Amino acid sequence: MKNKFAALTNPKTVALIGATERPGSVGAGLVENLWSGREKRRLFWVNPNIDQIKGATSYPSILKVPQSVDLAVIAVPAEVVPVVVNECCQKKVGAMIVVSAGFAEIGAAGQPRQDEIVGLARRAEIPLLGPNCLGLLRPQIELNASFAPFTPPAGGIAFISQSGALMNSVIDRSGLENYGFSSLISYGNGADISLVDLLWLADRDQQSKVIAVYLEGLDHGREFMEVAREITPHKPIIILKAGRTELGQRAAASHTASLAGADQVYRAAFKQSGVLSAGTLEELFDWAKALCWLPRVKDGVAILTNGGGIGVLATDEASDQGLTLSNLTEATAARLKESDCFPREMVFNNPLDIIGDADTERYRSAMEILLNQKDINTLVVIQTKQTMTDIQANMEAIVDMAKKHPAKALISVCLPGRLSQPAINWLESHHIPNYSDPARALKAARRLIY
Amino acid sequence: MKNKFAALTNPKTVALIGATERPGSVGAGLVENLWSGREKRRLFWVNPNIDQIKGATSYPSILKVPQSVDLAVIAVPAEVVPVVVNECCQKKVGAMIVVSAGFAEIGAAGQPRQDEIVGLARRAEIPLLGPNCLGLLRPQIELNASFAPFTPPAGGIAFISQSGALMNSVIDRSGLENYGFSSLISYGNGADISLVDLLWLADRDQQSKVIAVYLEGLDHGREFMEVAREITPHKPIIILKAGRTELGQRAAASHTASLAGADQVYRAAFKQSGVLSAGTLEELFDWAKALCWLPRVKDGVAILTNGGGIGVLATDEASDQGLTLSNLTEATAARLKESDCFPREMVFNNPLDIIGDADTERYRSAMEILLNQKDINTLVVIQTKQTMTDIQANMEAIVDMAKKHPAKALISVCLPGRLSQPAINWLESHHIPNYSDPARALKAARRLIY
Repeated sequence: MKNKFAALTNPKTVALIGATERPGSVGAGLVENLWSGREKRRLFWVNPNIDQIKGATSYPSILKVPQSVDLAVIAVPAEVVPVVVNECCQKKVGAMIVVSAGFAEIGAAGQPRQDEIVGLARRAEIPLLGPNCLGLLRPQIELNASFAPFTPPAGGIAFISQSGALMNSVIDRSGLENYGFSSLISYGNGADISLVDLLWLADRDQQSKVIAVYLEGLDHGREFMEVAREITPHKPIIILKAGRTELGQRAAASHTASLAGADQVYRAAFKQSGVLSAGTLEELFDWAKALCWLPRVKDGVAILTNGGGIGVLATDEASDQGLTLSNLTEATAARLKESDCFPREMVFNNPLDIIGDADTERYRSAMEILLNQKDINTLVVIQTKQTMTDIQANMEAIVDMAKKHPAKALISVCLPGRLSQPAINWLESHHIPNYSDPARALKAARRLIY
Repeated sequence: MKNKFAALTNPKTVALIGATERPGSVGAGLVENLWSGREKRRLFWVNPNIDQIKGATSYPSILKVPQSVDLAVIAVPAEVVPVVVNECCQKKVGAMIVVSAGFAEIGAAGQPRQDEIVGLARRAEIPLLGPNCLGLLRPQIELNASFAPFTPPAGGIAFISQSGALMNSVIDRSGLENYGFSSLISYGNGADISLVDLLWLADRDQQSKVIAVYLEGLDHGREFMEVAREITPHKPIIILKAGRTELGQRAAASHTASLAGADQVYRAAFKQSGVLSAGTLEELFDWAKALCWLPRVKDGVAILTNGGGIGVLATDEASDQGLTLSNLTEATAARLKESDCFPREMVFNNPLDIIGDADTERYRSAMEILLNQKDINTLVVIQTKQTMTDIQANMEAIVDMAKKHPAKALISVCLPGRLSQPAINWLESHHIPNYSDPARALKAARRLIY
């Protein structure tokens, strides 16, 4: 099975059928993106109406390409796709991606065409991704076989999306975020390669630490549950399922080929197979970032803050999430009292409010003492920007503590702002997640509990 | 009553007691912030240990200031505050802000001192803000009587915060956001000037379009409800109340003077007085932005999207929020069918999915036709960044439509990203709110319904 997909995920030669340099076209987007990885693999352009692209021959058909082809990317009008797929089968390519739309997603008019290309691919035993998809990206090997706006940074999140539009927006957003991707795969109609195959692939990818999925509907429920149940004990899967509500399901039914089933069925299936169910797009990536960077831990949370109010907001959410705020042990309280970092009026509680004038030494001592308490497994460190607050220095202390306590989860809460954004970027470059709202941080903390 | 607070909110002369240029100190923060408004009002520095500050005399006591003083800002150690307040009363200043900490918030040790200064102020009939607060800012008149890190932009949000730390973070964040403030007031222990007074003030401020409050606990429940009930029919009040949960209430009790009461009591009081209850910091400002910029409307929502999946996510949230997705009328459907902007395979539904290759003309026509349907009062316009998507041009179309239909609420959903952020900033400079997640947009849309 591994060999079956190698041509898709690590091709040595790629042919683009429907290559063009016409500005704004899907074909031109693909040319540019594939071109960015030209030092890693051989590229061939196929378009009977054009002689040259990027200074290289454009072949009239894939059958004229003078070498074997691992991956064929197909971006031609829907009517022509069956002919092209047939030629790819004759050429014995290793895998196909059909980005073209105009198949099952447009209803009865497109279904026979989809059945035809799937039939051809399966008879030839060539895996086919799509149709009606954005394509596939693997940043760390400079493979961008998609018409996405640019290549996001490499990292540990495997993102699998039924919607190409949504994947595009996620990629655009990644330009402002600090997480990266092991792979991004849009599977569109999922006519041949299914979500189940892609989960299997993401699981085997050593680069991927967490699998994030955007899902509209699912065909192979039982298979899905089997593979998810196998993966989730060692690699988390988070799914954002559109169509939670009846209204949403009706909206989904009108735009995808697959039926959006009743929400309860999905929720039950996710729960039984250990899948985390995100409610919004923000949650999907809030949680993915935490699960990608942090260890999974047992319950037991401490909150450290220089602002009482925001500590209370965090406590409210910890309670909503069913998390346990560890009681400070006598030993911990004694250590805090003995330290000369803390003002006399401080109350030694969890949340631990080290007061508005806390400097980095106070943050550092408090973190060290809290992390030395055995049953504190997650430490949420909150900073509000006060006169004395040196956010960058505090972030450096957090990174030091995370290195000293690798089995514990450190999470930062600092509102992004003019003064704090550079420090937040620095922190996240060291793989400690930051959240702009205490509620988002505690929701993510909950997902680390195993 | 108006005259009572004029010296606080629009002082012609300000004296800072505890002025200093020592880097990193509260006094120095206040000097810099007051200094930024030096062309608008006369400033006096008071500190017996210093001769000059910013090239001007530093007086040994406020009694030596050779002019009457509207506003006295007091930033001296807690033990000295009663003496200074007493002098301010002798000087007959118009109002006082006590930023110093060390009063009721530290418990029994600080309560008598707080009672003493309140007694002095009340006998002299001088309003006192604080103690234990960040101060007061009114950006449009360049008044920054606080030790906040900088002055945020002017705008229509009146922000009232029991916590100074939280206000600092909100100010830092505002540097990355596109909304502005009519005033920001931290009232700390609220020993004299209470939330009720500040609501009353914000209501009378013509610049303020919406009142956003961060609250930990409330002393004057009945008065609060009376004033809120008077204000909310014409000016929205949104409150984020910390201590929603029992755990949170315990955390709150340990750090403020006021008792955090049972959540149900607060919720009931808010509901009865028309106050919107935000659950998180993000909601507080998501909603404030919408209520500041958009008209309040009747129910009836349409969703326009170039990505089916994200349209489904929006529909799910609309359903959760109890919003009505208007059925497209026959006239609307006919107009959409007659227009030559739309591809044949399009389905004319709400959400209206104008498909991934939608250009600005298609967005513009769809918006025009939807907004002409009478019962569509809110239009949520979603853009995913696809090859054909010209986000800036689409944003311009949204602004045009908002001008043509001033009684309707237009809301944008576009994930902030490398390519879309400049267009989002442009849109919000024209007072159309953008949200990074469809769920956040629909939650805000719900709050516009009256």
